[in-house]
Amino acid sequence: MGEVKVTKEELIEKAKKPAQDAMKMHPYYKGKIEVVPKCVIRDINDFAIWYTPGVAEPCKAINKDSELGFEYTNRANMVGVVTDGTRVLGLGDIGPLAGLPVMEGKALLFKYLGGVDAFPICLDTKDPDEFIRTVKLLTPSFGGINLEDIENPKCFYILDRLRAEMTIPVWHDDQQGTAAVTLAGLINALKIVKKKIQDVKITMIGIGAANVCIVRILIRAGADPEKMIVVDSKGILNRKRDDIKPTHKEKLEFCKITNAENRSGGIEEAIKGQDVVIALSKPGPDTIKKEWITNMADDGIVFVCANPIPEIWPWDAKEAGARIVATGRSDFPNQVNNSVGFPAIFRGTLDVRARTITDEMCIAAAEELARCAEDKDINEDYLLPTMDEWEVFPREAVAVAKKAMEQGVARLKFTEKELFQMAEAKIKRARDEVAILMEKGIIEPYKE
Amino acid sequence: MGEVKVTKEELIEKAKKPAQDAMKMHPYYKGKIEVVPKCVIRDINDFAIWYTPGVAEPCKAINKDSELGFEYTNRANMVGVVTDGTRVLGLGDIGPLAGLPVMEGKALLFKYLGGVDAFPICLDTKDPDEFIRTVKLLTPSFGGINLEDIENPKCFYILDRLRAEMTIPVWHDDQQGTAAVTLAGLINALKIVKKKIQDVKITMIGIGAANVCIVRILIRAGADPEKMIVVDSKGILNRKRDDIKPTHKEKLEFCKITNAENRSGGIEEAIKGQDVVIALSKPGPDTIKKEWITNMADDGIVFVCANPIPEIWPWDAKEAGARIVATGRSDFPNQVNNSVGFPAIFRGTLDVRARTITDEMCIAAAEELARCAEDKDINEDYLLPTMDEWEVFPREAVAVAKKAMEQGVARLKFTEKELFQMAEAKIKRARDEVAILMEKGIIEPYKE
Repeated sequence: MGEVKVTKEELIEKAKKPAQDAMKMHPYYKGKIEVVPKCVIRDINDFAIWYTPGVAEPCKAINKDSELGFEYTNRANMVGVVTDGTRVLGLGDIGPLAGLPVMEGKALLFKYLGGVDAFPICLDTKDPDEFIRTVKLLTPSFGGINLEDIENPKCFYILDRLRAEMTIPVWHDDQQGTAAVTLAGLINALKIVKKKIQDVKITMIGIGAANVCIVRILIRAGADPEKMIVVDSKGILNRKRDDIKPTHKEKLEFCKITNAENRSGGIEEAIKGQDVVIALSKPGPDTIKKEWITNMADDGIVFVCANPIPEIWPWDAKEAGARIVATGRSDFPNQVNNSVGFPAIFRGTLDVRARTITDEMCIAAAEELARCAEDKDINEDYLLPTMDEWEVFPREAVAVAKKAMEQGVARLKFTEKELFQMAEAKIKRARDEVAILMEKGIIEPYKE
Repeated sequence: MGEVKVTKEELIEKAKKPAQDAMKMHPYYKGKIEVVPKCVIRDINDFAIWYTPGVAEPCKAINKDSELGFEYTNRANMVGVVTDGTRVLGLGDIGPLAGLPVMEGKALLFKYLGGVDAFPICLDTKDPDEFIRTVKLLTPSFGGINLEDIENPKCFYILDRLRAEMTIPVWHDDQQGTAAVTLAGLINALKIVKKKIQDVKITMIGIGAANVCIVRILIRAGADPEKMIVVDSKGILNRKRDDIKPTHKEKLEFCKITNAENRSGGIEEAIKGQDVVIALSKPGPDTIKKEWITNMADDGIVFVCANPIPEIWPWDAKEAGARIVATGRSDFPNQVNNSVGFPAIFRGTLDVRARTITDEMCIAAAEELARCAEDKDINEDYLLPTMDEWEVFPREAVAVAKKAMEQGVARLKFTEKELFQMAEAKIKRARDEVAILMEKGIIEPYKE
């Protein structure tokens, strides 16, 4: 790959295949997840243990000590995937019911890649306060909350309040998940070009939920905000911008802390002389022009993550002088893919029963993800592990769990070895389970 | 059984075993249900179908036609088991988290006996209006709602409003489920003693959620309200009672429509001369005295369903002249057990995508349940099928589905044969799934 150029038309044509398969296979299976017993049912008498009268005893014990809820139920491994359907994929506000296939898909990835049980909660409200209230009421059923596909800027408000007010970890994958995986890719890209994160000039194109969180995480991971340039749809953020709404606190903040030289202009000006461009903005391939990339510093690093078409074709960016190019697509090298992040990050978080997922836990995940790829020998076309390198996930989970313990947000403590064995066993069990269900025909083979 | 008398102490001792096992096995398995893929994952490329980019297509289709939500997701088979934890088993208001083991147990029964996916939703609110609002917001995730363990009289208000305001079936198992199974038992008891439901004098002892619904369903099934006597903790309901709160609408109604002779007194007076006594009241064994039963009509039918100890020992009731005795316990003959009701009733309801579960659908389930036992030859000690007669469940589901179609509340139509095959296949699959997961060690054997 990388050398083979395709046209926009060919790519769009190619993307039709998964869409066509999806329209046949979704009704064939009638959804993607089911709820299944995880305890023995040796005979009908076991229901006297799992249901009345036996079940009264664990109920009474939890009533006395709520921590036992994590021991006597599956709560400790159960994540709610919660959406209001206001920004589903690139489709916009299609509503909570139309978002359900995505939430089920997310639950599938959670289980298969992270051994995490996840359940789709599609809420029929657009009111952020009602959303927050509802998620809080649902707390007893879950050990963690994964917010998904909520529009910007509402998603910031919801995440901030829920993180502050809930006793279980709350995470918005479009923010922290994307940021963690992007950081992992950048760490390895910088290793290849032998530059240090604190020295490089980074440009961020777009100011959606992911972009905002990436900027914050990059700064926390050592990037120098004064050397950063952030561009929104109106141009570069700087001290002169007076058009930004007071509700968009993050933008206002970036106007102050980034762009020390007070540069102005559009994307072209924002890219000039920079070491790194990270774009999650408008689908291309013409959002970023070839000649603009030419003006980057030597060994330019370009992350163009718009879907389905990156802001510039990778081969065009390379021809224009970029040394490393990453995209959001699985059919180009260096996919920046959340799926190598959230399943393992939640695995590690749940394994130590952490109260929250800190930015530092995300950074620890990113660093370990980067190390996993490095152990296999990174190069311009291999920055990041892919979803099928499943041995990566337990390592990432351990890094997250260790950081949680170190930061004092973990309720449980384990040795590194114990953490690895736990994570590995749970992920392996999930994969084995699917394999067995397919082999035995409980999950039927797909027939046209 | 039936002949072997045990003491209260022996029974309580015996009940300790499931409790002890529960306290060991709940932490061993860390809960009872998990979320599992139900679609093929042939390799990592399938995620392009189940998740982005392919999944966008079913999302767009559902956005255009919401009915497709039932085709492209598991919603059509997914029931929310929703509680506020205010009346969990006989334990009272132990809160939503402490209720989670019961809700998981319910989900286990739903799947294993009915092939229905069920997910526990434990809501951290005691406000009925907030509860109602929350359940309504959750609608996109579920094809049906099973309310569970909500205190009386709040449970009536919640059920009535949700049934009126939601487009998916809402059911309170403590009301309709108990009523359906009780009616099934009574139908067969009446066959044995050769009496007709419209002729018999029935006494109801207790006025909890189940009792109220049983009275309503019995009347709908043909019982004559004028011949019924209902007793609450203060005595027989009659025209003279002026102590009943206006919020307890059902009681006020029963004061008017039952007890045409305007009898008064306590349980003793309520039982005198009656053909049937149905008690779901205070645990015994002395709630109902032996000598009171002596005063019943010939061939008396006595349902004493308090848990864990029935209102009178079955052998005492029989010695006092009762011909048929049923209880709530699995270790006595004639258990009146909700588990032979709700899994199949929801199976049938979901299979035709019914908008609601009517009283007539409950009665149809009861009649079929009664017929199933009759087909095996009923007698004084075998009124009702037990949970392990799994061939009963598809028959019951068909009866419910047919009634829904007949009443025009079904969105889908099938022939009786199709209905049976669907229900049987789904229930069989659930049982096979558990067997395979146990055989393959995904569900590990329990070791002390």
